[in-house]
Amino acid sequence: MNNIIVQKFGGTSVGSIEKIKKIAKRIKKYKDENNHLVIVVSAMGDTTNELIKKANSISKYPSPRELDMLLSTGELISISLLSIALQEINCKSISLTGGQSGIITNSYHKKARITSIDTNRIEEELEKDNIVIIAGFQGVTENYDITTLGRGGSDTTAVAVAAALNADLCEIYTDVDGIYTTDPRICKSAVKLNEISYDEMLELARQGANVLHPRSVEIASKYKLPLVVRSSFNDSEGTKIIEVSKMEKTLIRGIALDNDICRITVTKVPDEPGIAFKLFSLLAKNNINVDTIIQNLNHDKKNDISFTVSEDNYKSTVDICNEFASEYIETKVLSKNNVSKISIIGTGITSNAEIASKFFQTLYELGINIEMISTSEIKISCIIASADTDETVRQIHSQFELDQINILN
Amino acid sequence: MNNIIVQKFGGTSVGSIEKIKKIAKRIKKYKDENNHLVIVVSAMGDTTNELIKKANSISKYPSPRELDMLLSTGELISISLLSIALQEINCKSISLTGGQSGIITNSYHKKARITSIDTNRIEEELEKDNIVIIAGFQGVTENYDITTLGRGGSDTTAVAVAAALNADLCEIYTDVDGIYTTDPRICKSAVKLNEISYDEMLELARQGANVLHPRSVEIASKYKLPLVVRSSFNDSEGTKIIEVSKMEKTLIRGIALDNDICRITVTKVPDEPGIAFKLFSLLAKNNINVDTIIQNLNHDKKNDISFTVSEDNYKSTVDICNEFASEYIETKVLSKNNVSKISIIGTGITSNAEIASKFFQTLYELGINIEMISTSEIKISCIIASADTDETVRQIHSQFELDQINILN
Repeated sequence: MNNIIVQKFGGTSVGSIEKIKKIAKRIKKYKDENNHLVIVVSAMGDTTNELIKKANSISKYPSPRELDMLLSTGELISISLLSIALQEINCKSISLTGGQSGIITNSYHKKARITSIDTNRIEEELEKDNIVIIAGFQGVTENYDITTLGRGGSDTTAVAVAAALNADLCEIYTDVDGIYTTDPRICKSAVKLNEISYDEMLELARQGANVLHPRSVEIASKYKLPLVVRSSFNDSEGTKIIEVSKMEKTLIRGIALDNDICRITVTKVPDEPGIAFKLFSLLAKNNINVDTIIQNLNHDKKNDISFTVSEDNYKSTVDICNEFASEYIETKVLSKNNVSKISIIGTGITSNAEIASKFFQTLYELGINIEMISTSEIKISCIIASADTDETVRQIHSQFELDQINILN
Repeated sequence: MNNIIVQKFGGTSVGSIEKIKKIAKRIKKYKDENNHLVIVVSAMGDTTNELIKKANSISKYPSPRELDMLLSTGELISISLLSIALQEINCKSISLTGGQSGIITNSYHKKARITSIDTNRIEEELEKDNIVIIAGFQGVTENYDITTLGRGGSDTTAVAVAAALNADLCEIYTDVDGIYTTDPRICKSAVKLNEISYDEMLELARQGANVLHPRSVEIASKYKLPLVVRSSFNDSEGTKIIEVSKMEKTLIRGIALDNDICRITVTKVPDEPGIAFKLFSLLAKNNINVDTIIQNLNHDKKNDISFTVSEDNYKSTVDICNEFASEYIETKVLSKNNVSKISIIGTGITSNAEIASKFFQTLYELGINIEMISTSEIKISCIIASADTDETVRQIHSQFELDQINILN
């Protein structure tokens, strides 16, 4: 099937009946341009949080399976109302649940991963010239149990469905009008990017930029699916996320800041095989996701292992590490729950040695002590004390002339 | 599988988080008595009406398919919350949607009929010793589209599931504590019945008693499923609905009153084949359900046809009949939108000629003119003017000594 466009509208875009009517009109306009349209929708506004609150008023730890059953209703409400709104303005449309859309996931409730999509029903409805409205954030297991995909799940639904349909384009409509060089609330000279590569977007998303969920970028990258992030409230062009080969070279594309982390150091662990495995498998068993990991040789055949976790995991991580440390004579646990990760991202980083030194120099001139450094092909992250991180972002943004990025291109 | 009990809790029984917790405790008690339990639940309190209001704020006539998608969420919320509440007090439980429960319906959205139930999943979960909590009021078509079963749909779900499982008992928990000889709000001496036959219950339900939906009684009767109606707020015994052969004989079991009707008479239609068909197929095409129908020979080879419809169909029915009448020279349409139907119901009616005459005599003594009479094996209905129907019910209740019914048994 040709000329398929998948569009995703987030919770704020469908936050009220009035907004749903407005979005319906916008979708009608796209449909009149003669496209096959698939629309992925999140739950209205704050619905998901309200449902979680209801569950928590009964149980502090509701079972993930039942919570998924409960949360899935948020999207069913928004897809049916959007479909009714479209039909009211004479657009043929049909709403489909995750299951009806053929979205099969594994059975890890609350954070399931899509394992396959059977697009038969979607294609059948597109052939009938229906606008197909799909419930984001949800799927079903092989056993028809309802699952949800975790934070940012509707983005993942949109991109995965677009990839499965071999769509021409996937557009993510949101409350910002694209991807910025850094958070515009922190840095006023932040600039909207016209384009960014999949890898850069992935690092930006992973390092704390909240616009797109990393998983959705991964899928788009794997299938080379053209992805656009744009505003649901105006007609500005948004940001294209595309292959490196198709874009202008630029050294640094953006700066990400993550304040929601803490640093744990386990000192003087014996320098022998299996130690890191033992520590991190213990954390994994307790469902604690570890971000940056660094191991340094200390002395006397002892190592220091440092890593970061999100703040809500701070206490349990320290407890687990203390238990681990108690098995070794000299081992101690140091921790700091008030640190930030500041990252610069760009495909030009590996090819240019000056970038790292300019980054570190800026931090030095601001009097900021770097606690940890971690690098990849296209990013450099520094863990620093949380004080004054906003000013740090502004300084780095200016040093790398990111406010000029669209002119330089 | 042995010892299966199906229990249905209506919207008022799960109207708040507190009520859900209370119901969970009650269910735990039944489970401790070592039963296999299947619980069918309606949407919380006023949820369904609120969802309909949302849909109507977008469209006056939302499509039935999308409305069903929307309405189905009400039950998903109550089943997941009830399951969470049960797990919180250490009862193993699992919630299942209509589709997951294997409830297949035809595709008449908003008033679908169950065509089959595949009980595999339910039985699998019962074997794991789970309390199975099923969303009432809903099913799926062969094509996995979500349908709802119309008014009283959760009763139908409960009885149909119980029949399919060959359950030992189906209990309908509601906000009254059983079936009464007549509406206790109208007649203070109304008495709760200990038992009633399927046929009597069916007529009571059809003639306007709102406790059970007729469809659910039909299914229970067909499968000889023991059905009990009882209160979700106290432990009193309720009313058993059983086979005639198993119960005490009594002449009259109850009185039903339906004020929501109007009478239409089409006069002097030609006495020739096909006339009634023509009139009623015209009404059926316009989705107007006709209740009591009476045809009397008038004179000169002309007939008078009278029938009743519900009040919301009054205007459209009169319009259709006028159109019909315009094709015949002498035919006229007479109508009255302020009439009531009062019915006495009991398996003893056919076997006792005195009952009809006592019924008519009571109406005569009250100075009430009977506009139409209609009878069946086990009921006599009279259409009368709506004035003072409450007093009429009280008089008939007393004449037939229904306040003594449990003593007489």
